[in-house]
Amino acid sequence: MLRFREAAPDDWPGIWAIMKPVARAGETYCWDTSIDETAGRQEWLPGTSGSDPTLVVFVAVEAGTDRVVGTAQLHANRGGNGAHVSNASFLVAADAGGRGVGRALAGHVLDEARAAGYTAMQFNAVVETNERAVALWISLGFSIIGTVPGAFVHPSAGPTGLHIMHRFL
Amino acid sequence: MLRFREAAPDDWPGIWAIMKPVARAGETYCWDTSIDETAGRQEWLPGTSGSDPTLVVFVAVEAGTDRVVGTAQLHANRGGNGAHVSNASFLVAADAGGRGVGRALAGHVLDEARAAGYTAMQFNAVVETNERAVALWISLGFSIIGTVPGAFVHPSAGPTGLHIMHRFL
Repeated sequence: MLRFREAAPDDWPGIWAIMKPVARAGETYCWDTSIDETAGRQEWLPGTSGSDPTLVVFVAVEAGTDRVVGTAQLHANRGGNGAHVSNASFLVAADAGGRGVGRALAGHVLDEARAAGYTAMQFNAVVETNERAVALWISLGFSIIGTVPGAFVHPSAGPTGLHIMHRFL
Repeated sequence: MLRFREAAPDDWPGIWAIMKPVARAGETYCWDTSIDETAGRQEWLPGTSGSDPTLVVFVAVEAGTDRVVGTAQLHANRGGNGAHVSNASFLVAADAGGRGVGRALAGHVLDEARAAGYTAMQFNAVVETNERAVALWISLGFSIIGTVPGAFVHPSAGPTGLHIMHRFL
């Protein structure tokens, strides 16, 4: 059983345990593949100083153990007259794959986005070769707005596209 | 006659004189329309602290007077395995419109992007109603990758799309 809640500072080691191998693999996020823990934390779970004031970070934890098995960021995709569109990012523990953690966490974050007053959600850079993620987003009502050709250099597949995906809430 | 160079701290008043009315109008950028000068500077001409290390800011100045009539930002659109795609933003003084400042500045920035090793340029949020800008980018070889529907609330036109535009360099 999963439980969803806002991330607390104490969740960072559990988040980094998920984030680090994703960063090192370099297959799904536009992060420096050698990103260290300090920069990783600034990227995913920044303090208040200088960070995006709209950012909320969630974790999916195993009920009982409180072990972090997934995490998500939710924030405004743009400011000013574009601030009604949200953006979210997701990470799921490698050993929790295939158990529906991503789908359940995404459902929670979509609900939170609606509750926060956002009227749409946009992903700016879904790696085209990340077929499982693309299929998940489509099954959750997202569509591909367009694909930027060769915008991502996949470590094994080479230049690949980045999808912009979107759905209204 | 125009001259192009990297922006210096002393250029800020001239840049803000261009940026402030664009921000207040709220028709072309996703900035808080009430953005103050300090936040404006942080947005366009930040110091080194916490800012994007890839960012370079240019100004177009009138030869002779050194008056700033346009400015542009150039930086990596993403990090890591997406860092080969650049992003740029442009501002032209209202009283310099129609004189080709935007086109000339864009040409300069495209050259600088190539020289910096970027292999493409992407715009993430070109307001659909900003027809002059869209036409300029198309004339300079950009294409519309896709349009995010209703992603921008134009102060008079209401909900309008944001184009993602792209060209290889």
